[in-house]
Amino acid sequence: MLKYPNFSFDIKHRDPKSRARIGTLKTPHGEIETPNYIFCGTKAAIKAVAPAQMREAKTDIILANTYHLMLQPGADVIEKMGGLHKFMQWDGPMLTDSGGFQVFSLGEGTMANEIKGKNSGKHENKSLLGISEDGCVFRSYVNGEKIKLTPESAMDIQRKLGADLLMQFDECTPYHVTKDYTARSMEMSIRWGDRSLAEFERTDTGAQAVYGIIQGGVYKDLRKTSAEYTKDRDFFGTAVGGCLGGSPKEMYDIVNESLPHAHPDRPVHFLGIGQIKDIFTFVRLGIDTFDCVIPTRLARHGSAFIKGHPGETINLKNAKYREDNTPLDEANGIPASTDFSKAYIHHLIKAGEILGMQLLAQHNVATINRLMREVRAAIKADTLDALEKEWLGQ
Amino acid sequence: MLKYPNFSFDIKHRDPKSRARIGTLKTPHGEIETPNYIFCGTKAAIKAVAPAQMREAKTDIILANTYHLMLQPGADVIEKMGGLHKFMQWDGPMLTDSGGFQVFSLGEGTMANEIKGKNSGKHENKSLLGISEDGCVFRSYVNGEKIKLTPESAMDIQRKLGADLLMQFDECTPYHVTKDYTARSMEMSIRWGDRSLAEFERTDTGAQAVYGIIQGGVYKDLRKTSAEYTKDRDFFGTAVGGCLGGSPKEMYDIVNESLPHAHPDRPVHFLGIGQIKDIFTFVRLGIDTFDCVIPTRLARHGSAFIKGHPGETINLKNAKYREDNTPLDEANGIPASTDFSKAYIHHLIKAGEILGMQLLAQHNVATINRLMREVRAAIKADTLDALEKEWLGQ
Repeated sequence: MLKYPNFSFDIKHRDPKSRARIGTLKTPHGEIETPNYIFCGTKAAIKAVAPAQMREAKTDIILANTYHLMLQPGADVIEKMGGLHKFMQWDGPMLTDSGGFQVFSLGEGTMANEIKGKNSGKHENKSLLGISEDGCVFRSYVNGEKIKLTPESAMDIQRKLGADLLMQFDECTPYHVTKDYTARSMEMSIRWGDRSLAEFERTDTGAQAVYGIIQGGVYKDLRKTSAEYTKDRDFFGTAVGGCLGGSPKEMYDIVNESLPHAHPDRPVHFLGIGQIKDIFTFVRLGIDTFDCVIPTRLARHGSAFIKGHPGETINLKNAKYREDNTPLDEANGIPASTDFSKAYIHHLIKAGEILGMQLLAQHNVATINRLMREVRAAIKADTLDALEKEWLGQ
Repeated sequence: MLKYPNFSFDIKHRDPKSRARIGTLKTPHGEIETPNYIFCGTKAAIKAVAPAQMREAKTDIILANTYHLMLQPGADVIEKMGGLHKFMQWDGPMLTDSGGFQVFSLGEGTMANEIKGKNSGKHENKSLLGISEDGCVFRSYVNGEKIKLTPESAMDIQRKLGADLLMQFDECTPYHVTKDYTARSMEMSIRWGDRSLAEFERTDTGAQAVYGIIQGGVYKDLRKTSAEYTKDRDFFGTAVGGCLGGSPKEMYDIVNESLPHAHPDRPVHFLGIGQIKDIFTFVRLGIDTFDCVIPTRLARHGSAFIKGHPGETINLKNAKYREDNTPLDEANGIPASTDFSKAYIHHLIKAGEILGMQLLAQHNVATINRLMREVRAAIKADTLDALEKEWLGQ
């Protein structure tokens, strides 16, 4: 039986009006308070933000993607270089996914489309060559090589990468498939979960902990079965994955009805979701950690999260910022947010200067970290409703 | 007569074996010790390095380019936003050029080609529509608009930008023209210099100081005439500009024979030159400040300046760095140089991560700043020859 002696999750406060909770998640690389946000360092780098600037923006935890790193530079190289923490110079808690999600969803549109059920249907991914009980075979986008990923190899790669929190290998079921397909897929993810756990246990050193993933698409009974499965096994944490439906209501219902069947005392991670409104919606359902590429992706498109702005973001490309001498946010506590004018950032984007996205990326990270600090304080103070209105400009 | 009461240049030490000197250049935004390096923030941004990271890399002074800024966002916008220092959040000394150099040289290849005489000949710049006694007319690369630049407008724009050190408007004469053309061009630059000074004086507030530019191509007698002109006028400083010949020897000879005719007590800036070997060559001829785009441009191409490496740089794209766990330079004193392995930076470049060029750009800036500190110390200690061998790996 897996005990995770170097990890713990303590729920210190529960919101009497919702399932929101305050917890402390302890890992060998430090503790984080939850709810919290895990920033995506997909290829072992937060896009356009160096580790020192991530810390300056008060970041607690980041993730990296197994799929990208197994292809470039390769898990063996990262292991030789001392593991992901040393490689990318992040000394705090870190998570990796299992690689499956990208294998199954890339080529079918963006990850967000996949989760939100916006795909055209079925597996149309041309680089995915086959799925079987054993695992899946795909073609490397780096060099065209055929690569096999199985529950065992996914755990082996994550072991070499060396993050604190790992994910079981699962099939990320697409949206436009039958219930029957989804059921068979979910059942295979259960068998893959057991194989993931067995492989994890075989090489366990106590330095890592593994999450089970709730699959089952948009079908409540399947989600229940999958949630109960994760509860019954020795996972350290629970993740909500796969397709969550085509509307916010459907996504809400799935999480709302899945989580009561999951383990009540384990940390719950919501894979790939993390706009500001999502944070407020899903902390109330008991989500402890979020991750999403959006803070840095928005930056590359010229957008900044702004507290209190209806729609969450402003786009600095807009000509109305050409002579706007105000900073992005005086209260954010980092130069990117407080020192530079919107006019300057507008100019940088127009001029094609990389510095524009650097400043916006750091600002967005700092804004989300501030959101999470304020969310935690509001849960403790029972003022989450008021805080939500403040953030969403309502 | 222009007095520049808020500026000074004090030569504190002269090398007995060469014309190298140690000076203190005082501006309203602080003092710098010379010899020093002025980093190019062409479009009001150092490419991929934020001001805080420039300071962390011990930068003393930067420049911005009038040509680019007059087109985007425009000098009036920058003036409205409080001037360049406030706009780009650089509170130290700053220089702007007059805009002429880009107008005359862009379209004919890179600026470096122009200076080093590597062009095909004459003005082939299609966006340069005409040169006359009044000034020049060119087409904006931003919106195709016809724009006129004259000595008066170049000074007006630089006044609005608000840098500390300004440049007179001059014609940057190409390499492959006759001596007769070069002479007429140099004489026009003299008349443009007088008009620049008159316009500068007309609106002088004491916040800025202007440099005269030595032109004259590869012809010693023309360079002498031009140098004597700059000495005879109320310029605060002297710059060496224009085509410097096709070989290192020719460049050396031009600077060597021009500077004795320039003012001996004014700061001398060398426009657009700044590889490591150039620093050692030209401080010995009395150059006080250098500028070049190379530290950040090399970074974008994956290269790092390395002290003691023959050839000055290494290219991190090279496969030999794939598993190289050593940092770029332990002695550089910033995380970009000391914390990350070459293997990691190699990976970032291969993976197309912007962070790779951010780290390399900051490393290159820090390396050049360290070079300049060591050059100043070596001039004082009379150990410049030994330092040159150390840096160039000889």
